[in-house]
Amino acid sequence: MDVIQALQQRRAAKAFDPNHQMAPETRRVLLENAALAPSAYNIQHWRVVDVRDPALRQAIRDVAWGQSQVTDASLLLVLCADLNAWQENPQRYWATAPQAVQDFLLPKLDEYYRGKPQVARDEAMRSLGLLGMAIMLLAQDLGYDSCPMDGFDFDAVARLIQLPQDHAIGYMIAVGKSVGTVWERNREPLSHWVIENHF
Amino acid sequence: MDVIQALQQRRAAKAFDPNHQMAPETRRVLLENAALAPSAYNIQHWRVVDVRDPALRQAIRDVAWGQSQVTDASLLLVLCADLNAWQENPQRYWATAPQAVQDFLLPKLDEYYRGKPQVARDEAMRSLGLLGMAIMLLAQDLGYDSCPMDGFDFDAVARLIQLPQDHAIGYMIAVGKSVGTVWERNREPLSHWVIENHF
Repeated sequence: MDVIQALQQRRAAKAFDPNHQMAPETRRVLLENAALAPSAYNIQHWRVVDVRDPALRQAIRDVAWGQSQVTDASLLLVLCADLNAWQENPQRYWATAPQAVQDFLLPKLDEYYRGKPQVARDEAMRSLGLLGMAIMLLAQDLGYDSCPMDGFDFDAVARLIQLPQDHAIGYMIAVGKSVGTVWERNREPLSHWVIENHF
Repeated sequence: MDVIQALQQRRAAKAFDPNHQMAPETRRVLLENAALAPSAYNIQHWRVVDVRDPALRQAIRDVAWGQSQVTDASLLLVLCADLNAWQENPQRYWATAPQAVQDFLLPKLDEYYRGKPQVARDEAMRSLGLLGMAIMLLAQDLGYDSCPMDGFDFDAVARLIQLPQDHAIGYMIAVGKSVGTVWERNREPLSHWVIENHF
């Protein structure tokens, strides 16, 4: 499916067929290609929890306004980020780059993040946005629907998935076969959000 | 172009043809379809500065490690977010939704963001990630290349584009015709970043 078509057909699914199972091969194609999304300095901070246990799904649903997508999706992904990935043996992120690039980037990376937790957090959230859009468009391409979700108790979900202290949750994405209806799409015109040269 | 193909072909362009001009119609298709990306509560916080003035491009390049993509791209977009968009007449974001949905969401939105600036900022960064991935995949689909950029002095660029106080810069995306070479792609295996059920 074309990128434009995938963007136009993607809507936030309100309900999924609880009986549909995604083939393991489809899951692999979806996740492997999603990770072709870029991340700052190629750090790939994303850590994605694939929630399969039905009891855990129900426990998450209980702290997510009871939304049915949590239990009924074929795939429920909690998109998290490792906020310290930038300092975990970072040279491996550019192992295939020319030596001169590696020599330039390694000190830059340290300077960019060290002592700046808000910078690392912003970056992590952006990367999870990039990854998530790739996941949702791939879902369309593979014949699925999706729903990005942030209507839940982040602290409660962090406890349920045993999130490490130095990680953060971005949001969840549910992927499945939509059985619900959606309302008419509503977007602001370009003139509202595109600014020429400066504000 | 297929979503998978677009993801597989997308690479961060290191250099662009400075003489190539993007047709206004292509720009419109790119931006209008990119905004079909989702955002939390459909707030569409994104505010995108399309930097066309060559002098402003050069000034930004001067605070962006001298990277040539800033001046040579056919389109240089500074992706910003309005951190207060959630309280700016928010009922308009769901004007096409059923009344019951509107009645549910409006108080939820206020409760979600009021007095929680970090939540609003996380959300904004995520939305800019979602929007940016859509922009980069659409660029591939339209025969272009792109480069996401965050190697620049954020405060200096904020001054140059006269960023309002209650806005934040996410990153920049340059779009154009790549003339450079890229090195081999480098990604961690799924086993590194996909976690089953919990950490």
